[in-house]
Amino acid sequence: MSDLKFTARAFSESPAKTVVETRSFKIIIDEPESLGGTDHGANPVEYVLAALAGCLNVVGHMIASELGFVLRGIEFELEGTLHPGKLFGTSSEKRAGYSEISVKIIPDADANEEVLAKWLEIVKERCPVSDNLTNPTSVSIELG
Amino acid sequence: MSDLKFTARAFSESPAKTVVETRSFKIIIDEPESLGGTDHGANPVEYVLAALAGCLNVVGHMIASELGFVLRGIEFELEGTLHPGKLFGTSSEKRAGYSEISVKIIPDADANEEVLAKWLEIVKERCPVSDNLTNPTSVSIELG
Repeated sequence: MSDLKFTARAFSESPAKTVVETRSFKIIIDEPESLGGTDHGANPVEYVLAALAGCLNVVGHMIASELGFVLRGIEFELEGTLHPGKLFGTSSEKRAGYSEISVKIIPDADANEEVLAKWLEIVKERCPVSDNLTNPTSVSIELG
Repeated sequence: MSDLKFTARAFSESPAKTVVETRSFKIIIDEPESLGGTDHGANPVEYVLAALAGCLNVVGHMIASELGFVLRGIEFELEGTLHPGKLFGTSSEKRAGYSEISVKIIPDADANEEVLAKWLEIVKERCPVSDNLTNPTSVSIELG
């Protein structure tokens, strides 16, 4: 299997609003008015939670199939905690991003606790977005 | 400044399609048919690129304002490289997520190279999504 490349192009429609194009899709990102935006879309850190849920869903179904149990669906509740001091330049004590992300996964499945515990371990291990958040990822950002 | 909490709820509409609700917004995540989905939305790792662009835009404008130069807009080109072996369970040699993300930032600004280089350094440092990708983040995933 060779590497997959994923790409996106984006432009700022305003200081807080970004339009992202990836394949045939357009994604609108904004901030609520309380954070200086026009509230036309979820904000960047909410999209991080969304990406994580989407990834856990795909991988969750794949692993259920590998383990051979019926998975009718999954619900997710996600929460991220972020101290805004560094972002807003008022303090550099804490990190800029989420200090903690928590996800509650509620599978609707024909499997006992032991099987679901094993399932969850494998899902965490093989979910790309979970990997990119929990482990350091090389991000090169350069002026073009 | 106290911590901010961001939340999302999500459910699987199909094995590859996830509907995410955050505040008043609905985000559709899917996979292309080549990756087992119905292609109704960008996929999870494309949303990671989108979140990063959105974050760099907001922080880019904030820092330009702090440094006192005019920033009319920013364009972004993003690319992520992912080896699918671990995700699909065919190999565990390489990590599950992006091995590398690269971002080209093209600012339309009244600022010289030196100022833009300084700007970019501060943007990278204070962008929450960039921080969550480049540094390890605690992600707790539990059965609910």
